[in-house]
Amino acid sequence: MSDPSNAIKISKVSESKISTVDFDDLEFGKIFTDHMFVCDYIDGVWQTPEIMPYQPLTIAPSARVFHYGQAVFEGMKAFKDDQDQIWMFRPEDNHERINISSHRMAIPEFPKEFFFEGLTQLLHLEKDWIKKGKGNSLYIRPFVIATEEAISASPANSYKFMIICSPVQSYYAGEVKVLFAEKFSRAADGGVGYAKAAGNYGAQFYPTSLAHKQGYQQIIWTDASTHEYLEEAGTMNIFFRVGDTLLTAPKSDRILDGITRKSVIQLAEDNNIKVEIRRVTVSEIKEAAKSGELKEIFGAGTAAVINPISGFEHAGDKFDLPKLDDSYATFFKDKLTDIQYNLSEDPHGWRYKV
Amino acid sequence: MSDPSNAIKISKVSESKISTVDFDDLEFGKIFTDHMFVCDYIDGVWQTPEIMPYQPLTIAPSARVFHYGQAVFEGMKAFKDDQDQIWMFRPEDNHERINISSHRMAIPEFPKEFFFEGLTQLLHLEKDWIKKGKGNSLYIRPFVIATEEAISASPANSYKFMIICSPVQSYYAGEVKVLFAEKFSRAADGGVGYAKAAGNYGAQFYPTSLAHKQGYQQIIWTDASTHEYLEEAGTMNIFFRVGDTLLTAPKSDRILDGITRKSVIQLAEDNNIKVEIRRVTVSEIKEAAKSGELKEIFGAGTAAVINPISGFEHAGDKFDLPKLDDSYATFFKDKLTDIQYNLSEDPHGWRYKV
Repeated sequence: MSDPSNAIKISKVSESKISTVDFDDLEFGKIFTDHMFVCDYIDGVWQTPEIMPYQPLTIAPSARVFHYGQAVFEGMKAFKDDQDQIWMFRPEDNHERINISSHRMAIPEFPKEFFFEGLTQLLHLEKDWIKKGKGNSLYIRPFVIATEEAISASPANSYKFMIICSPVQSYYAGEVKVLFAEKFSRAADGGVGYAKAAGNYGAQFYPTSLAHKQGYQQIIWTDASTHEYLEEAGTMNIFFRVGDTLLTAPKSDRILDGITRKSVIQLAEDNNIKVEIRRVTVSEIKEAAKSGELKEIFGAGTAAVINPISGFEHAGDKFDLPKLDDSYATFFKDKLTDIQYNLSEDPHGWRYKV
Repeated sequence: MSDPSNAIKISKVSESKISTVDFDDLEFGKIFTDHMFVCDYIDGVWQTPEIMPYQPLTIAPSARVFHYGQAVFEGMKAFKDDQDQIWMFRPEDNHERINISSHRMAIPEFPKEFFFEGLTQLLHLEKDWIKKGKGNSLYIRPFVIATEEAISASPANSYKFMIICSPVQSYYAGEVKVLFAEKFSRAADGGVGYAKAAGNYGAQFYPTSLAHKQGYQQIIWTDASTHEYLEEAGTMNIFFRVGDTLLTAPKSDRILDGITRKSVIQLAEDNNIKVEIRRVTVSEIKEAAKSGELKEIFGAGTAAVINPISGFEHAGDKFDLPKLDDSYATFFKDKLTDIQYNLSEDPHGWRYKV
């Protein structure tokens, strides 16, 4: 595998569908670009990758992914700067994490060379789909599914690694209010909560739909045993600003090791903002809200970037958070997006030129 | 929907592949019959079901099932008696349970009429695939997958309900030894453990593969919080015979409400065998094994029927279980299969003639 670029077989679309897309009115994750990256794992080996027109898969109804949820994914973004250069943000971390997720789900790891060469070639092909201007980006979805035709409950011997891309703007439109979980939970100790395993997400849909009916967009999950500790929001890690200190839960086997999360922690340290990475209790946050010490809550994730939370409810107690002039959420969002869009220095080498 | 039989569109294969199958050498869940049942959910309505040749699906790579594991399934079996009559076992319970699973996974419930008419017509079509003789059966796999093309983490608006069938013999060949879980776990309180959600199964593959390396076929999962309580085996509920009393964990939001499990409990009551449905601790089972009071452990599930367990390990302590002449496992397996194959009375009306 000395030159993986030679190893990728590319079939282009005869005509792009880009002219049919309204880039000013994008619903998140509904429109896909012209091409996709596909690599099959057969007989213990990842085969020659292909980039081909985005198209339906032909897959047996007995493929294990349908029955046993043996599937993992990643979320990444590509950004375009004013010089038409394309950038990604810490993509090595996504590669590492998809392999961590795969390991936990008994899926073979995907080679780094294929991952990066696939991304690079795919993004060059789709460069017109990446629009300039903060807020515009190309959402990139690498994922792996178990394709073997067999309905016994054991790991598959064949898999498909794919990358599909979707032009996006913001993930959450409007105000986001959250419910702190009291009964439902997202992950068990010793389970797969730290992995981007497909089933972790579907399992949240029903409790989240109940939250929607109460007027909340998201749930902040608490630990399954006691519901006393605030963990993550399922699509975002969560930060609490109490006074001028940021609090966030430590990563664990229940909590995703978010790339935006760790970037916020680094940026806080760079800017002399105190961060406490420790278990955060529901009761301390409610007390801080009552006393006025709780200034902000925000989510951090690739899709949402930084998402301010305007209020929360727990056990019938409702709290609204004030709009601040010196919001940390705005500060970190600006810092992060400046780096992502090549508008500022990048002291930690997070930007990756495609 | 007054006569659902009129509502199913049937396309038969031109030639059956049954002559290519060696029914004396079946690997579980690898061979599929000639036809499958398919029903699509579109615009809020389950559409006209179809029975068609078993064939690959054409499905978008952005279908939510691949990304968010929004998928549930059931396991059922059909049996043939000496008069060539086809029977199922408590299928109403499978229909109820797939809808309970669907509800938890934010999937629309599937109508009972379609479920039973689909099963009936499909099994009549596949009747030659159901072989006589105890141990032979047709494994039936209803499942639902989210098909909408959208990679935002929320419930799909389109689904596919399917039934595929696979001729089977026994699920576990040979001796089954188990490991009691000490670190990994299967389900969280407030999670989806009681549902046959696809992701519950894939999440067990890695810990189970570690158990395999230690010489154990399965894990008996313990509660995620303390690992002190024995719960289920992932593909089977678990019974412990201490003295002449059967112990099994109560159903909960972490434990599947197994149909074989509740049939065993009923048969025990019918036959004056004492059953205690209560939390069973690791320490009491280890103590009982040391004192000789622990006579048997067995699993109960549709695929495995009743599966005796010949030994277990916990925290480095290994225990072998004796072979008994008056085994409860054998007793219940005989009772159950006699009912399933129409060889005995059926006082509880569990048999369902197809």
